[in-house]
Order: sequence, then structure tokens, then C-alpha cells
Amino acid sequence: MLTLYTYFRSSASFRVRIALNLKGLPYESVPVHLVRDGGQQLLPEFRALNPDALVPVLLDGGQALHQSLAIIEYLDEIHPTPALLPKAALDRAQVRALALDVACEIHPLNNLRVLKYLKHELKVPEEAKNGWYRHWIELGFASLEKRLNASPPAGDFCFGDTPTMADCCLIPQIFNAQRFDVDLSPYPTIRRIHAHCMTLDAFAKAAPGAQPDAE
Amino acid sequence: MLTLYTYFRSSASFRVRIALNLKGLPYESVPVHLVRDGGQQLLPEFRALNPDALVPVLLDGGQALHQSLAIIEYLDEIHPTPALLPKAALDRAQVRALALDVACEIHPLNNLRVLKYLKHELKVPEEAKNGWYRHWIELGFASLEKRLNASPPAGDFCFGDTPTMADCCLIPQIFNAQRFDVDLSPYPTIRRIHAHCMTLDAFAKAAPGAQPDAE
Repeated sequence: MLTLYTYFRSSASFRVRIALNLKGLPYESVPVHLVRDGGQQLLPEFRALNPDALVPVLLDGGQALHQSLAIIEYLDEIHPTPALLPKAALDRAQVRALALDVACEIHPLNNLRVLKYLKHELKVPEEAKNGWYRHWIELGFASLEKRLNASPPAGDFCFGDTPTMADCCLIPQIFNAQRFDVDLSPYPTIRRIHAHCMTLDAFAKAAPGAQPDAE
Repeated sequence: MLTLYTYFRSSASFRVRIALNLKGLPYESVPVHLVRDGGQQLLPEFRALNPDALVPVLLDGGQALHQSLAIIEYLDEIHPTPALLPKAALDRAQVRALALDVACEIHPLNNLRVLKYLKHELKVPEEAKNGWYRHWIELGFASLEKRLNASPPAGDFCFGDTPTMADCCLIPQIFNAQRFDVDLSPYPTIRRIHAHCMTLDAFAKAAPGAQPDAE
């Protein structure tokens, strides 16, 4: 049995929820509230599972796995069908790079603990903090939009006509963008992929609003 | 023939240089100066290769690959020996997670363009900016140090007694830490792994000071 420590709004947890759903793997969901109790991820019980104090954590037979992309690669290795990475090495590199474009260039800058540091340590005013949030999404989405229209162009999904790890990363990032009122009109391909993904149960049921801990 | 677009001080380029050296793959090095000319990565010629305007880019037979971890996984797939990931899925997940602990939780916050945004847009004073830089390294290294002493504990390298993708990420991050005078005394295991890696040509020849474009 798989157990996922998750927070409904956590973008990295959302990635793993999509992957689990795409693979049809049932899991028990354990909510970790990132705000309540001063942040339940900071409590010793959770830190024992993940010293980073970050969700998600996936428990598989007593083994705690962390880092959403490492978890998705793991799921893809032990449950290869349906595959979340293409077969050819160059294609795999392209899908991984798209996933990392979100996971390394956008999301880390908009993480809750980073926003807290900007507010409390650097005394950045609310509007400038929201501007920072939007800036990294807009910068990242502008180059992603170019890539998705380059060779080979995106199909129904980021890469071809089946969902991959890249979609697992992109869709949660779009939710964050919408929450912070980022104007998505300059990114028609990203919007098209998003609209298509959200017609699928695997994505819709992984969304923040569909989680048991949603507020 | 492989061509690497690189900058001597770029931590992500350094990761790929280590991987190429560990695999014994010769490559042509094309320097992209991140400061000169207002940042050569921002010039149209380079943006045509990578719309993100980030190094490294690896050219393999006309195909441009970006994102250092996607490049390293690609190299590991097309040149499997010596392997930069272990064989068992759980072990692979652990190595990938260690690599991502650096690549997602530390390095993105200390990237040049992020430091520029703090300085120019948010008007963060120099000393507070350097404090930010050190903060994310110290937070990340504290949890990495715990992980490296957990089960299974690190060997000569982050995982066992052969170098992996995790070492490709950790060692460049230590160089950054030293450049910003981070006190490394609380992380004896990280220091031990670093000292061992730097006795190896693959790491030493990939270091910033050993690059043709070093200043």
C-alpha cells in the first residue's frame, strides 16, 4: 500500500497525485497542513520522514521517498504502464527537461518558505512579493511556450499525445499561476494543454479542490 | 562529437562537466560569459539554442539538450558505463532525490538572475542578499547532512563507494558555498565527500578554476 503525505495546495504533491492517478495506483492520503500549527511539516514526526520538511513524501512498504520528480521516476520504473516517459533517450531528455523547467526554474522561487523569507526577513511588501511570484512564472512560461511550439511541437500534451512527467509538472504550475492572477493569454499552447488535461480524471481528481483536505 | 555551452562558474554546467568526465566522454567547450556583453546567454544566438537563456546546453549531433539533470540522465542512458545511478529502483530514487535536494531546493534560489532581481527590483542591500544566499545553502546542507548519515549512510560518495548524479550536484554547490563564505564545519559528511571527490580527476578537471574561460 502506498501512502502519500500531501497538502491540497502543494504543487509538488499535486504532481505526484497526477502520476499516481495516471498509473491507476491506489494510495492513502495523509494531509500535512503547511500553515496550521505553525506548519505541520515542521513538526518532529514529519521531519523524521523528511528532514527537508517538505511535502510530498511517498511511503512504499516502510520506505520514505521524497522529491516529487524522484518519486515519479520511481513510480514509472516499478509500474511501467502507462509510461510517463517516452522510450528514446533524446525524447526522454526532452520530457525531463520540460519537467525541470518548471521544477527548477519556476516553482522553487514561489515555494511557501521562500515567500515567507521575502516577507519576514527581507521585509518585501505584499505587492512586490506577488510581483516576484508572477515574474518567475511569466519568465518560465514564456520560454516553455516557445519550446512547446518548437520541434517536435506539443500534441494533446507537452510531448505527443499521451501524458508524461512534463504534464505532471506543468498543470500544477498553472494552478499556482491562476491563484496569483497571472495573465495566461500570451501562452495559448500551455492553455490548450491545460484545458485538455483537465478533461481527464487523473488530472481533475488530483487538483487541489478535489482533495480531502481542501479548504 | 559533443559540444558543451558552459560558464566556468555556473554550478549547473559544472555538474555536467563532472558527468562527462566520469564517463570519459570528450567534448568541445564553448564559453558563454554570463556577465560580459550584458550576459552572453541573453544574446539571440544563444537563445535560439535555449529560450531559457541558461547554461549549460549540450549539443549532440545537432540536438540541443538543456537542464543539467536531464542531460546527465541522457548521458547515463546512452553511455551506461560507468553508471551514475544505481540499479535498484529504490536506490535510484534516493540518488535522484539527493540530486534534486540541491537542484530544486538550494541552487535555484542562488541563481545569478535571482540575485539580480533581489538587487535591482527588490532593492535588497548587498549584505541581506548574501545572507539570503547563505540561508538556502545552510538550510539545504543541514538536511542533506542528516540524510547522508541516515540509512544507508554515505560511503566515499553520497551513495555508496562510486560517484553518482548526487555527487555531480553536491560538489558544485559546495564551491558556491565556499565562494560566499558559508561555514561548512556543521557538515562533516558533506566535507568528507567533497574532499574525496576532489582527489579524482573527473571532479578536479571540471572545477571552475580548471576551465579555459576561468578568470
